[in-house]
Amino acid sequence: MPVAGLPHTARSPLQQRYAQVRARSLELAAPLSAEDQCVQSMDDASPTKWHLAHTTWFFEAMVLCPHSPGYRPYDPRYFYLFNSYYEALGPRHPRPRRGLLTRPALDEIHAYRRHVDAGVRQLLLDGPAAQRPQIERLLVLGLQHEQQHQELLLTDILHVLWCNPWRPAYLPAGKAPSPRAAGRTPPRRWLSRPGGVAAIGHADKAAEFAFDNESPRHEVLLRPYLLDSGLVTCGQYAEFIADGGYQDASLWLSDGWARVRAEGWRAPLYWLNEDDAPAPQPGGWEVFGLGGLQAMDPGAPVSQISFYEAAAYAQWADARLPTEFEWEAAAGEPGFSQAADSVWQWTRSSYDPYPGFRAQSGALGEYNGKFMVGQLVLRGASCATPPGHGRLTYRNFFPPQARWQFSGLRLAKDD
Amino acid sequence: MPVAGLPHTARSPLQQRYAQVRARSLELAAPLSAEDQCVQSMDDASPTKWHLAHTTWFFEAMVLCPHSPGYRPYDPRYFYLFNSYYEALGPRHPRPRRGLLTRPALDEIHAYRRHVDAGVRQLLLDGPAAQRPQIERLLVLGLQHEQQHQELLLTDILHVLWCNPWRPAYLPAGKAPSPRAAGRTPPRRWLSRPGGVAAIGHADKAAEFAFDNESPRHEVLLRPYLLDSGLVTCGQYAEFIADGGYQDASLWLSDGWARVRAEGWRAPLYWLNEDDAPAPQPGGWEVFGLGGLQAMDPGAPVSQISFYEAAAYAQWADARLPTEFEWEAAAGEPGFSQAADSVWQWTRSSYDPYPGFRAQSGALGEYNGKFMVGQLVLRGASCATPPGHGRLTYRNFFPPQARWQFSGLRLAKDD
Amino acid sequence: MPVAGLPHTARSPLQQRYAQVRARSLELAAPLSAEDQCVQSMDDASPTKWHLAHTTWFFEAMVLCPHSPGYRPYDPRYFYLFNSYYEALGPRHPRPRRGLLTRPALDEIHAYRRHVDAGVRQLLLDGPAAQRPQIERLLVLGLQHEQQHQELLLTDILHVLWCNPWRPAYLPAGKAPSPRAAGRTPPRRWLSRPGGVAAIGHADKAAEFAFDNESPRHEVLLRPYLLDSGLVTCGQYAEFIADGGYQDASLWLSDGWARVRAEGWRAPLYWLNEDDAPAPQPGGWEVFGLGGLQAMDPGAPVSQISFYEAAAYAQWADARLPTEFEWEAAAGEPGFSQAADSVWQWTRSSYDPYPGFRAQSGALGEYNGKFMVGQLVLRGASCATPPGHGRLTYRNFFPPQARWQFSGLRLAKDD
Amino acid sequence: MPVAGLPHTARSPLQQRYAQVRARSLELAAPLSAEDQCVQSMDDASPTKWHLAHTTWFFEAMVLCPHSPGYRPYDPRYFYLFNSYYEALGPRHPRPRRGLLTRPALDEIHAYRRHVDAGVRQLLLDGPAAQRPQIERLLVLGLQHEQQHQELLLTDILHVLWCNPWRPAYLPAGKAPSPRAAGRTPPRRWLSRPGGVAAIGHADKAAEFAFDNESPRHEVLLRPYLLDSGLVTCGQYAEFIADGGYQDASLWLSDGWARVRAEGWRAPLYWLNEDDAPAPQPGGWEVFGLGGLQAMDPGAPVSQISFYEAAAYAQWADARLPTEFEWEAAAGEPGFSQAADSVWQWTRSSYDPYPGFRAQSGALGEYNGKFMVGQLVLRGASCATPPGHGRLTYRNFFPPQARWQFSGLRLAKDD
Repeated sequence: MPVAGLPHTARSPLQQRYAQVRARSLELAAPLSAEDQCVQSMDDASPTKWHLAHTTWFFEAMVLCPHSPGYRPYDPRYFYLFNSYYEALGPRHPRPRRGLLTRPALDEIHAYRRHVDAGVRQLLLDGPAAQRPQIERLLVLGLQHEQQHQELLLTDILHVLWCNPWRPAYLPAGKAPSPRAAGRTPPRRWLSRPGGVAAIGHADKAAEFAFDNESPRHEVLLRPYLLDSGLVTCGQYAEFIADGGYQDASLWLSDGWARVRAEGWRAPLYWLNEDDAPAPQPGGWEVFGLGGLQAMDPGAPVSQISFYEAAAYAQWADARLPTEFEWEAAAGEPGFSQAADSVWQWTRSSYDPYPGFRAQSGALGEYNGKFMVGQLVLRGASCATPPGHGRLTYRNFFPPQARWQFSGLRLAKDD
Repeated sequence: MPVAGLPHTARSPLQQRYAQVRARSLELAAPLSAEDQCVQSMDDASPTKWHLAHTTWFFEAMVLCPHSPGYRPYDPRYFYLFNSYYEALGPRHPRPRRGLLTRPALDEIHAYRRHVDAGVRQLLLDGPAAQRPQIERLLVLGLQHEQQHQELLLTDILHVLWCNPWRPAYLPAGKAPSPRAAGRTPPRRWLSRPGGVAAIGHADKAAEFAFDNESPRHEVLLRPYLLDSGLVTCGQYAEFIADGGYQDASLWLSDGWARVRAEGWRAPLYWLNEDDAPAPQPGGWEVFGLGGLQAMDPGAPVSQISFYEAAAYAQWADARLPTEFEWEAAAGEPGFSQAADSVWQWTRSSYDPYPGFRAQSGALGEYNGKFMVGQLVLRGASCATPPGHGRLTYRNFFPPQARWQFSGLRLAKDD
Repeated sequence: MPVAGLPHTARSPLQQRYAQVRARSLELAAPLSAEDQCVQSMDDASPTKWHLAHTTWFFEAMVLCPHSPGYRPYDPRYFYLFNSYYEALGPRHPRPRRGLLTRPALDEIHAYRRHVDAGVRQLLLDGPAAQRPQIERLLVLGLQHEQQHQELLLTDILHVLWCNPWRPAYLPAGKAPSPRAAGRTPPRRWLSRPGGVAAIGHADKAAEFAFDNESPRHEVLLRPYLLDSGLVTCGQYAEFIADGGYQDASLWLSDGWARVRAEGWRAPLYWLNEDDAPAPQPGGWEVFGLGGLQAMDPGAPVSQISFYEAAAYAQWADARLPTEFEWEAAAGEPGFSQAADSVWQWTRSSYDPYPGFRAQSGALGEYNGKFMVGQLVLRGASCATPPGHGRLTYRNFFPPQARWQFSGLRLAKDD
Repeated sequence: MPVAGLPHTARSPLQQRYAQVRARSLELAAPLSAEDQCVQSMDDASPTKWHLAHTTWFFEAMVLCPHSPGYRPYDPRYFYLFNSYYEALGPRHPRPRRGLLTRPALDEIHAYRRHVDAGVRQLLLDGPAAQRPQIERLLVLGLQHEQQHQELLLTDILHVLWCNPWRPAYLPAGKAPSPRAAGRTPPRRWLSRPGGVAAIGHADKAAEFAFDNESPRHEVLLRPYLLDSGLVTCGQYAEFIADGGYQDASLWLSDGWARVRAEGWRAPLYWLNEDDAPAPQPGGWEVFGLGGLQAMDPGAPVSQISFYEAAAYAQWADARLPTEFEWEAAAGEPGFSQAADSVWQWTRSSYDPYPGFRAQSGALGEYNGKFMVGQLVLRGASCATPPGHGRLTYRNFFPPQARWQFSGLRLAKDD
């Protein structure tokens, strides 16, 4: 498959980065057939092809159309098809019907990507100098955006494959991303953290990119606390199940317990055992992942759990979830392991704006701010997060019932 | 695309027919991409690929497995995936999730078809002689079944294409099936039909195939009636719309009026005009069909309407729908036109069993009988019906709200 | 409670009948508190108070307003509140919210009844002579209408009481209506019925009242058949349950089986046994009725079953349901018992119009005709039907899933 | 109506308070008929009768059964009927069916209240001395609980009356509680508040009662901010509407905008104008309240709005909602008006646990803690809050879409 790219000679770092990130999206889609890339398994998830197109639309709508005078859109009808949720940019194809877009075909989306990539290349060559800093900021944002969709591409296709009764693998088990287990040494332990003032969030002046929801950097007061150096494992979570965790209302938040009952939750989303029809798995739990169905690894971090399950587990373990501030204040400190490469970590913090936060005006103001209610913050990064995308100040967020992400937990306690 | 078939030498008529019908399914799918063939646009409709596989499963499950001692199933897991509704044959993949089956891939389904075709060929060569008549009966049934799915394949893919905001055509307008308009001569008129005893249904002894729901042949008493020699046209239906037909509750059955209000019906399913967002069609009605979006042809029969709409139109026209008995008693008589090649014709008859009807035992007993409540009979055949598949005794049936078929109406009156 | 009525001197038969029927509605409501009479337990059912008001509205809207020049409506706002489904008479209070009408209070509804009764009395004294026949026809219709609601009043309040975990009785068991068991002699047997032409429906010229859906009287052709002289009993139905009737898909119509699974049906609506939480009934089935919870009487006719259950039972019993024509042709003949006083009897006939049926124009045309699709005919009458209300040509109708009526079945077979 | 009470002689302050609070519930219900008190207008709201019973059940289940050796429950079946959400206390009547409980009748609930009141009186006379402090704590909690239900009783019956197309008043306008407007002097203004450390929450040692969710008292860091001295008025809110506030997606949180579209929001829940069928209100807005439908008072605080609407208004006004910490730090300070007596005030704070919060064990642990996700904090108190029930540390909470409370907003800004 020919990959849209930029010539290797005399490329700026941004050009190189653009080429790398854009190429990676196609690499992630490469193991999938056109059929695989077309379908949508639930309203919350999107087809692979749609991810490939939407991330391209972002560059077209946010960068090329406003800033590249000579740019001609690939097909004006794409603005309707591949806008995700930007009200400021006009009407859009309904989210639950993304999986019905058999046209444009996958080949067309590839051509669209090449067209936009060429437009970006041209813009970087001869774009208006006065707008150069703004253009570069937008390109960086577009690449960060594409990386976010790279993770969703993986979690969404995993759900498609899960819905197939054959439970096919995305890649052979050895090659597929999976949550990294902690090393044996040093052993997991409670890290003791002092209370006091902690600076939280991303410094606006920092050279490193950050999303608007990580700002302003501000101070919070913490009480002394204990934080687990590592993540709760599948083996520990299996004990919670075996101890009747999914049958004991006293462990659950009220809305969580209602979900357990209404949807028949009895284990993490992708766990199967002999109770599961039509494909019973005798002999203990098996866990579905990008590498297919595998025997549950007791040492691997538990994943694909909702906030409700994380909170119930913590209650059962006589602990609690950390706030996002406790997490951030400890991350990066000695002993703190599994910050990334494993699973996102539910915190006990609702996704509220930081003090002083104001959304940008215009379409980009819709990027994060309008979702700041009813969701919970996850910190860290996962095995599906593109390398280099995470930060210790990164605020991921999902509704409390979301289960299809690589999401687990780290315990905390009052000290 | 290589088509599974039988050698042309020394073929029996059944072998030839098998090859023709099987080949036609692939021909119908040929204009569609693998993506097109995979998706499902609503619970009532199925993906093209699923139709190709399910019709093959029918031969495997009903003919080869019970009657071909040496036959080896292509893949035992297909029994779960491609059973439609036969409770006697075990659990099955949920209907609303047929569109998530990106695996097996389309190529695999083609191989499956070839495997089963080879099995059938072998069975006809060396199958057990004693079971031969039963095998031939089952093969004929399987081919009739496949022809029914050929029609659904077209109506279902038409709905997929309709759901795409681009409204792409299945085939160029000149090549795509579309409801045939009546000729100019002789002009449409009321056919006067006498009352009295009419024999209805298919004679069991007849050489021609018929489904079980067409039997037993029996007598009914009719009153004198008038029957339209042809079908209600788009032009006539547009007058009904312009006269406020969709705003006048007095024309509608109660459940129909509830649908009109709840779902915002204002024209046949695939009609668009300038009120439609996001793709306004200025200058009158356009009608979507297998050939794409075309200006409404006033002389073409109206299609893609529900029973409720057919009944409301008849009320508006100071007429009524014929019963299925009135239809059958007049069909084939001089002057009766547009029995087939246009659209199925809603009747005022609920889909009830004929007197003396008893379903077969076993899985085949589920073919028709278990649907005999809550549906209405349609008679005739449509432009999407395979040539040679229809009969004057044929009883098609759909729920009263179904709108995605090539369904229209013929008027009747008391005489 | 003072009952609105007419003086007993010099009353016409119509006046007497009016007084009797109107008084009976209040008598039926008398055992119920104002609270009981206010609530609505499901969309299909209506509050007692609403029945009392709506039947009164019928006389006001259909008789007094159009025909009594000096009549002053009790409260014009009642037209909106107590119209049931007459589109021709303007907008109306949404059906599912009838139970929220705590105002007007029950006392007000009693006053409303007295006001309308006085208006009717006055109209009969001094109404316009020329309109007298039409007025009398409308009054008779209004009384028949009120009798229909008297039956619904009982079945609807029974459902309210059923929804109360205490399962209170409407009246003490000895005084409450309940389905009458057949006498021991003569024993139940198959009545053999000849085929041929049968006259069906109500003769328009007959002195007796009938609803429009019973006309025109017309001839049908019947095949010879056997009809059970009596009704299927609770004891027989319990055998069907014990034999796994609710677990065997092969006995059920497809839509019926879907209901069984989705709604967990395992017995008639009001049957309880030890599997029922939170009020287990050890020691076999108990059946809830207007007299409260009672041990199941094996000899009583089974009741509160849907059409789907009736049809599945018949399939299990190697029989079938009769058509409404078979039922009517045999009813009244020697040996045919339990036509009334027990339970309505599901037939295998969809509720279609009789040949030549045309609805009246205006609001009264909505009385029956607009419901003629998607429902099944029940024949006979039940223990909740007012005495004298039934007829052998009477066509009751409900959707196939309706279970809250006194509905059972009588078996038939081909002969 | 006889009111259960305690003799006035030699009553302890707790006894007196018990009698007062209990009597007030009956006083609030007094203007309502038994019918009014029985029905339930939506799942979120409860019938008046249920409130009267549930608050009584609380004393029975939490105080009398565990602590009063000789106490005999009024009726053991009430434990099932009137438990609200305490999983630890066994199964319970489903919340959406509370309105079907016509039995026990209202009179019975009054008798139940008297029985429990007598039990409490007896317990205070001769209860086990060792448990006395715990009993008193529980009684105080029970009274606070009853006061919370007194407010819900009013907001829930207001919704019932709203659902009645007649829109009847609970009390004459002059006597009904309604949100108090701010006085003219001093005029509203921005209060300037310093940043720094603020102590938040209720001190455990304080003599005054507080709920567990107000603890532990802890310190937070605030930035300098401006806080409106008073509440947003109806007149201001009408400007927001007139300016297209409900049509401009850019003002809304994403979930809020979805509600606006799906549910057709165009004004606060109880506002009507000439666009409203079937009861048009010509000549500007009218507002429904406990005193019935009244012309909108521009100076009154806006009420019956959701969090989404509060946040959209703030965005439109170029301001924001305060956090609950900003609210609490300023409340009670000079210039801060309308803390109570008007409407609850949505804050920008998700309802999360305070640092160090741990729910009690046992049933009482379910009181607040299990709802700490997906809801927003409201501060202050409303015209429906019982006198003396509020506190500056009080944390009320509702989901962001809740609209049927006396809920409005106070603006804030960064300084």
